[in-house]
Amino acid sequence: MINLYDIKDPRFLKDLSIEELEQLAAEIRKFLIKTLSKTGGHVAPNLGTVELTIAMHRAFDSPRDKLIFDVGHQIYTHKILTGRAKYFDTLRQYNGLSGFPKRIESEHDCWETGHSSTSISAAAGFVYARDYRNEDYHVVALIGDGALTGGMAFEGLNHLGQTGKRVIIILNDNEMSISQNVGAFTNILIKLRLHPRYNQAKKLSTYFLKENRFFTRLVKRTHASIKRFFLQSNIFEDMGFEYFGPLDGHDIPTLLKAFEVSKSLDKPVLLHVVTQKGKGYKPAEEDTVGIWHGCGPFDIETGEFKCQQDENVWSWSKIFSEIVTELAKKDDRIFAITPAMKNGSQLGCFEEAFPDRFIDVGIAEQHALTFAGGLAIQGLRPYVAIYSTFLQRAYDQLNHDLARQNLPVVIGVDRAGLVDGDGETHQGIYDISFSRSIPNVAIMMPKDPEEAYDMLYTAFNREQVSLIRYPRGSYRVDGLLSYTPQEIEYGTWTMERFGDDLYILSYGPNVQSIVETVKRHQLPVTVINARFIKPLDTKMLDSILETNKPVLVFEEATKIGSLYSAVLEYVHDTGRYAEVHGMGLPDQFIPQGDRKRLLEDYHLDESSLVKKIHTLLHKESGIDG
Amino acid sequence: MINLYDIKDPRFLKDLSIEELEQLAAEIRKFLIKTLSKTGGHVAPNLGTVELTIAMHRAFDSPRDKLIFDVGHQIYTHKILTGRAKYFDTLRQYNGLSGFPKRIESEHDCWETGHSSTSISAAAGFVYARDYRNEDYHVVALIGDGALTGGMAFEGLNHLGQTGKRVIIILNDNEMSISQNVGAFTNILIKLRLHPRYNQAKKLSTYFLKENRFFTRLVKRTHASIKRFFLQSNIFEDMGFEYFGPLDGHDIPTLLKAFEVSKSLDKPVLLHVVTQKGKGYKPAEEDTVGIWHGCGPFDIETGEFKCQQDENVWSWSKIFSEIVTELAKKDDRIFAITPAMKNGSQLGCFEEAFPDRFIDVGIAEQHALTFAGGLAIQGLRPYVAIYSTFLQRAYDQLNHDLARQNLPVVIGVDRAGLVDGDGETHQGIYDISFSRSIPNVAIMMPKDPEEAYDMLYTAFNREQVSLIRYPRGSYRVDGLLSYTPQEIEYGTWTMERFGDDLYILSYGPNVQSIVETVKRHQLPVTVINARFIKPLDTKMLDSILETNKPVLVFEEATKIGSLYSAVLEYVHDTGRYAEVHGMGLPDQFIPQGDRKRLLEDYHLDESSLVKKIHTLLHKESGIDG
Repeated sequence: MINLYDIKDPRFLKDLSIEELEQLAAEIRKFLIKTLSKTGGHVAPNLGTVELTIAMHRAFDSPRDKLIFDVGHQIYTHKILTGRAKYFDTLRQYNGLSGFPKRIESEHDCWETGHSSTSISAAAGFVYARDYRNEDYHVVALIGDGALTGGMAFEGLNHLGQTGKRVIIILNDNEMSISQNVGAFTNILIKLRLHPRYNQAKKLSTYFLKENRFFTRLVKRTHASIKRFFLQSNIFEDMGFEYFGPLDGHDIPTLLKAFEVSKSLDKPVLLHVVTQKGKGYKPAEEDTVGIWHGCGPFDIETGEFKCQQDENVWSWSKIFSEIVTELAKKDDRIFAITPAMKNGSQLGCFEEAFPDRFIDVGIAEQHALTFAGGLAIQGLRPYVAIYSTFLQRAYDQLNHDLARQNLPVVIGVDRAGLVDGDGETHQGIYDISFSRSIPNVAIMMPKDPEEAYDMLYTAFNREQVSLIRYPRGSYRVDGLLSYTPQEIEYGTWTMERFGDDLYILSYGPNVQSIVETVKRHQLPVTVINARFIKPLDTKMLDSILETNKPVLVFEEATKIGSLYSAVLEYVHDTGRYAEVHGMGLPDQFIPQGDRKRLLEDYHLDESSLVKKIHTLLHKESGIDG
Repeated sequence: MINLYDIKDPRFLKDLSIEELEQLAAEIRKFLIKTLSKTGGHVAPNLGTVELTIAMHRAFDSPRDKLIFDVGHQIYTHKILTGRAKYFDTLRQYNGLSGFPKRIESEHDCWETGHSSTSISAAAGFVYARDYRNEDYHVVALIGDGALTGGMAFEGLNHLGQTGKRVIIILNDNEMSISQNVGAFTNILIKLRLHPRYNQAKKLSTYFLKENRFFTRLVKRTHASIKRFFLQSNIFEDMGFEYFGPLDGHDIPTLLKAFEVSKSLDKPVLLHVVTQKGKGYKPAEEDTVGIWHGCGPFDIETGEFKCQQDENVWSWSKIFSEIVTELAKKDDRIFAITPAMKNGSQLGCFEEAFPDRFIDVGIAEQHALTFAGGLAIQGLRPYVAIYSTFLQRAYDQLNHDLARQNLPVVIGVDRAGLVDGDGETHQGIYDISFSRSIPNVAIMMPKDPEEAYDMLYTAFNREQVSLIRYPRGSYRVDGLLSYTPQEIEYGTWTMERFGDDLYILSYGPNVQSIVETVKRHQLPVTVINARFIKPLDTKMLDSILETNKPVLVFEEATKIGSLYSAVLEYVHDTGRYAEVHGMGLPDQFIPQGDRKRLLEDYHLDESSLVKKIHTLLHKESGIDG
């Protein structure tokens, strides 16, 4: 038996028998279930790829050969095999092991991911660099069927297929992306899986692969006939790839043979591997919804999640989705669209109520927004729920298609602000900055669920693009769904006055925290709920600036180009002098950790705020300490 | 003979015989050649789609049926048939006819474009809206083979194909995107075109289509057998589309019959139509490079362009490409990548010198950047030339893949600032604003070709992402290629001092214009060449701010989030009061026109600048008028 903690690098795999490799898989699976039950993490994708990753590391020589993991959320076995088992109790925690590939962690992590569908493009770069330098390592990209529906992956295939260059794409087909997969492409994969020749092909491959050298020669000599043994020309072959599959992704001998054949071919190869998400852990295996894709700590025996929240404490995703569902009951123009994030965005309630008005377009953020534009231009009122960092993937669609045509699309910007655990790739801190300069776009963030209700109600009745941000956290709701929404006067802020020595501007639930802080410390300041980040409430801002008191903009977003910047532009556009201070995130990528800890590190926690307020007040009043 | 100026709407087409339709095509072609020879415009795409557009308007009932034009640069015949011939002498001019679809121009322009690959997503929106409301119009998207290589188009096909909803996608296969097409997809289309059944299929289609009703019934009853008549299962059929083609896109009867069949089918249809770019005008027909895709005025007889420039006056695209080619002679790590803009970005010189290091990835901006990242992470130094507005399509790749991994990719941001003729979709005024908040990214703009040389030289030796912007215009170069580049001290500005009553900050060739203005009007100001927009030269900025003189930031970019904003953030971050003014573009989409006129309209012309300077100087010195 191998002690996973003793593994230094994957070379030991070369000496193991098939039986030992299978035993190792069982060990790793046990380890993953145990550690993830404590830390949480991407349970299902990792349980599904244990054998596949072992086979990859046995067949290839990392770090010489380059193993690229699309999205990167299936990388745990890779981390174990490259000497990182001992760090798993710190997974996704502050200063701990990343849930994604990180070059700083290991030379075996050759390309960093977090967002989907980038691996094939990266692989193309590695391949060109290799060939240019006459080097001869293998480049292998592992990509899921969900990620393959992203247009960028298609762009990569389109390029690589034509080059004829040696590369191995492993399509990990687990019949789901995050929840159930969608799109015509899925049908193609289903067709390949259900093809009557599936079993035959499997047998044949096993047969031929036994005699590897013979097979290789045969492949080289008579491609056409080999193709006939497997399946008839399919989309991948049409694009210039040698296609093998579908192969059982839990069958190590088959995988190893397929990898050996692939290594011997001097052309693009696509290996279609079928795996089962959650393999080896029953609750995850039986999950058809996707709750085991990424989850928190759980009880191994019962399969129950440990952080069962009070049923009146809802995630902001749920709050938004429930409100939109309520609004859709009275407004039959409302459609809900998600780019493969039905669970993450908690849109199940909408789908249940209005199956005909709910559309999951797959991992296709660009399409999601422009499709919404098509609906909107014909008089409907689409709502797109999308994570802040995934909205980054549809910047041009937001600008060129929606805003330029001034189409009434409401975008729920989920995971706005810092998030727990996921790190740099998922910090929702850029959306204000990149969208604020797009004309016709309104940017809002509600301080509480009732305001969210009012905002959504208001936005659905406007003839323009509305971005409404909300954080990843949760909020206590009491009778929210019986609340009667009010139209918000467009572009207006509100204030709570506890004094007027200082004006603090913020948005979102942080406004509430600031109010509590101010009350608790009895600070003589006014807290402004700048619920419209764009357009500004210039009337209120004028009245604030006329007091000549200092202004402090507090935001959980990059300081560059966000609300602080908007206020400064207004101050100077109107020819004023004003003491405006900003508290926000610095010009660097923000690493993983729990949000609370990150707020401390970046001086956005309560004590930093209080300190800052004191400094400004004392400065203002001339008191010195 | 039809007078094109008399056309009010396309209904008249219903009464014309095939012969008359063909005559009309000849008329339109003559008209296009004549008017475009004076105004310039997208010659080749429009000459290629005359018959196709006539057939579309004969077969469908616009505006009831929705005709969506991908990119929109092939829309001229549509504009003529919808009553806009009389405006063609104003094409692409200030307040004139747009070269793209514009809803404000006509009810027949149902969806606006300008950027590529959006039409299928938009069509999906129209189709869902139609079916939801139980309406029964047709939705038709016309998309070129080039645009189809954009991943977004694939996302749209993937969605629509699965829905089974009634929609007609016309693939206009002209064997080129803007210049020659690339990617595996091209091979698929070539295979379809060269298939031995091509002619047979054509004949069959013609035969069957004659008996339209019979054919329809046949199609409905025995799909499978029909498929066999045409081609075997192909990529489009795999994705759920009924595929017909390839059809001769200049043969009106064939097209009409194909449209009738398509209209009768209650499912997604893809019509593969082959057209010849530039059809009917020999110089454009014979163009294999793509210079006739979009061009200026020309002499009809000789096919020569009228604005032949002095050979020492180079476009900025040429300047950058020639410099990069020079640098690549001494640095074998430099690769050049273009997303289908080899001509636009004038990269022919690089390809000629280093065919192995030049890669056109097709219309695939996302892939272009991440592919460059793959090269960079393996030690190469990719250079990506990309238009400012097309960089919008790769925001996440810039952020998530390049900047987050801090990879040394040099991006030449072409068409930065206002551009002639193309209008809202092509104004390069957002790139600073959306990229400035991305950590690790440097943003520069050179004031002249020598500085461009220094900047590129400097950037290729740095370990980070560099965006180097350049405008669409041209510049006199003298012995540029024999210039020996100097390393620029990173993040430093330069200044020309003519007085110190006011400090003007700008970047790019505008710095030169400002210097000339200041000299001409003998203004007591200092002009700062803020060649690094990020990072700022804080040392120089400190010294300026210490003078307590007013600062004026002048930029040909949106005022929101650009250099003005960066300066304001710095001023307030360092706790200063300062009189900072901004001249830039307002928060609205900037319409088409020549750049000079637009600068006047938005008060960025010389006289506006002088006026502003006078105001600030007088205010400063207390003089009142």
